[in-house]
Amino acid sequence: MNQRLEQFSNWLKETEQTFAFVHTSANVFYLSNFNCEPHERLLGLFVFPDQDPFLVCPGMEVSQVRDAGWKYDIIGHGDADQPWDLIHSALKKRGIDDAKQVSIEKETLSYGRAEQLMKRYPSVKFNNAEDKLNELRLIKDEEELAILRKAAELADFGVETGVNALREGCTEMEVLATIEYELKKKGIREMSFSTMVLFGEKSGQPHGNPGSRKLKKGDLVLFDLGVVLDGYCSDITRTVAFQEVNDKQKEIYDIVLKAQLLTLDISEPGTRLGDLDKKAREVITNAGYGEFFPHRIGHGIGIDVHEYPSMSEDNDHVLKTGMTYTIEPGIYLPEVGGVRIEDDVLVTKDGYETLTKYPKELQIVGN
Amino acid sequence: MNQRLEQFSNWLKETEQTFAFVHTSANVFYLSNFNCEPHERLLGLFVFPDQDPFLVCPGMEVSQVRDAGWKYDIIGHGDADQPWDLIHSALKKRGIDDAKQVSIEKETLSYGRAEQLMKRYPSVKFNNAEDKLNELRLIKDEEELAILRKAAELADFGVETGVNALREGCTEMEVLATIEYELKKKGIREMSFSTMVLFGEKSGQPHGNPGSRKLKKGDLVLFDLGVVLDGYCSDITRTVAFQEVNDKQKEIYDIVLKAQLLTLDISEPGTRLGDLDKKAREVITNAGYGEFFPHRIGHGIGIDVHEYPSMSEDNDHVLKTGMTYTIEPGIYLPEVGGVRIEDDVLVTKDGYETLTKYPKELQIVGN
Repeated sequence: MNQRLEQFSNWLKETEQTFAFVHTSANVFYLSNFNCEPHERLLGLFVFPDQDPFLVCPGMEVSQVRDAGWKYDIIGHGDADQPWDLIHSALKKRGIDDAKQVSIEKETLSYGRAEQLMKRYPSVKFNNAEDKLNELRLIKDEEELAILRKAAELADFGVETGVNALREGCTEMEVLATIEYELKKKGIREMSFSTMVLFGEKSGQPHGNPGSRKLKKGDLVLFDLGVVLDGYCSDITRTVAFQEVNDKQKEIYDIVLKAQLLTLDISEPGTRLGDLDKKAREVITNAGYGEFFPHRIGHGIGIDVHEYPSMSEDNDHVLKTGMTYTIEPGIYLPEVGGVRIEDDVLVTKDGYETLTKYPKELQIVGN
Repeated sequence: MNQRLEQFSNWLKETEQTFAFVHTSANVFYLSNFNCEPHERLLGLFVFPDQDPFLVCPGMEVSQVRDAGWKYDIIGHGDADQPWDLIHSALKKRGIDDAKQVSIEKETLSYGRAEQLMKRYPSVKFNNAEDKLNELRLIKDEEELAILRKAAELADFGVETGVNALREGCTEMEVLATIEYELKKKGIREMSFSTMVLFGEKSGQPHGNPGSRKLKKGDLVLFDLGVVLDGYCSDITRTVAFQEVNDKQKEIYDIVLKAQLLTLDISEPGTRLGDLDKKAREVITNAGYGEFFPHRIGHGIGIDVHEYPSMSEDNDHVLKTGMTYTIEPGIYLPEVGGVRIEDDVLVTKDGYETLTKYPKELQIVGN
């Protein structure tokens, strides 16, 4: 077994689980190197304390599981099969007649799928696989970091492309289309979330949607985007001013930048995660804009664009070397517009490194 | 209450449920007109047999819920809140101390969230809301059909754009980028799934991934794409030949087209869904390629790109006027390439109408 599977299997042994059923694309990918979006079809990895794992997937994916290097059993199911019956038989063959302690991803496994197990194993108790899988995924290895760096570079390139595409009268969607076109030409098949390009007052909505708003002199322009590269995500936000900037816009820009830099400054092994949120919130609140910063400071990033941990103020965990996450304070003023500045950050032995590197000084572009 | 909410609430009354907790973006949108991707944050609609519903969402979305026309209570939660405590209090205020029969979307509600309810209401029994919601969503009204028609038109445009972009030596990703660029310029923010553009032998993988494969004379080119428009999806597949076509390719094209047309021919109110799959499979199997058609004939389409019903051979339900779904037979030959032809179909009073209208005769393009 690869090291990740082995660590997970050892944990099942230590905690006396009958088996684990891992169903999310992200965790299956992490453990097996097989990356697949099965939609409503069943994808699952069964891992045991004392025997080899097996993988369940739609029949048409079987050859791709092999291509990903999977050496163990595969159960491919057709659209007319009952995959749970196939699983039940496979478990029986491995000597599992009664599953008492089963580890699942409680936060995402559907109640309906859990019910399939409960029906077949009436005395089953479910334990949470997520804590262990999150812990394993939390610290990125060199191979993962190499991909995350490249994904961040492409996010930088996305912002640069967007900034260069700004012209008076162009729409948010035109700029967005240009960004994604250039990224796709570089081989990016998927953005890590719906790209945001927001002009003027629309940037003042923390989750506004790009549309046909036309760019005008004096608009703030907010870009929030990321790519998926080899199964890993990036996520960057930058805000620029178009042609001119007024005092209020400049004021909130300076506050957000200060909050971002001071929060980065305390990023090092041992820092309490909640203190990152607290630091940014303190800066913004002291400047009188606390109520206009309505979201947490950031989130873990890796195979998922939003992954463990959630960097909100009540999080008592601490930063560890090898963790990657976002730092993204913002201020959103309904009339004036919004500013958010977000980097992907890696905790290093003695501090941090930002993976995204696009400049953060206030730029007045389009002159 | 709007008609959809009212029908759902009436069903809760008839089936003696304490309340329903609806959490998927799609069903919340269907019932409330509020369309939101909350990521890992909690989104939920609580519907009752005898009182007004309320909606739970991330705090930053509250104003957008109002913009969507929601007239009832909203519980916005911040990242540091415990939304389940807020929900528990809100239910208490409405006189609900003990929830015995609760309707949830079993196929998607996570076991972890179900557990939050089980903890607070130890005698709770879960019933499936999906059957009723699927039934409500199954038949599209005129407003929905108007959007689906436009979404299908944009899918046609996507294929046309792709076909026009084919040049010897271009890569799959370049063509894909051009398609999405042109769609985005028309205001499309989101594709309904990852666009597929596959050349030559890569089209022979039913779920291959576009990459840097270069286009050569004699390649089959398979496009599979769709857009999300105003919350509704389209999904089209077309296959063309580049510059020339060999006998084998032409043979499988003709078989797939025949299978698609004959399956469409039996599409009318009363046809058993499984018979649609059976018809296409019969044509393809009789021609000797049964083993190379590894997926179901189609799926429902609407707010979700893959929605109820699944059109596999064991489905005993029948077509009804107003249903929309895909018909997408395919043959995938590892060396030769693959052919799939897919339309979005609407069942009409006396037959069917294809919403996607891009031509289906074999085209040899690029000459």
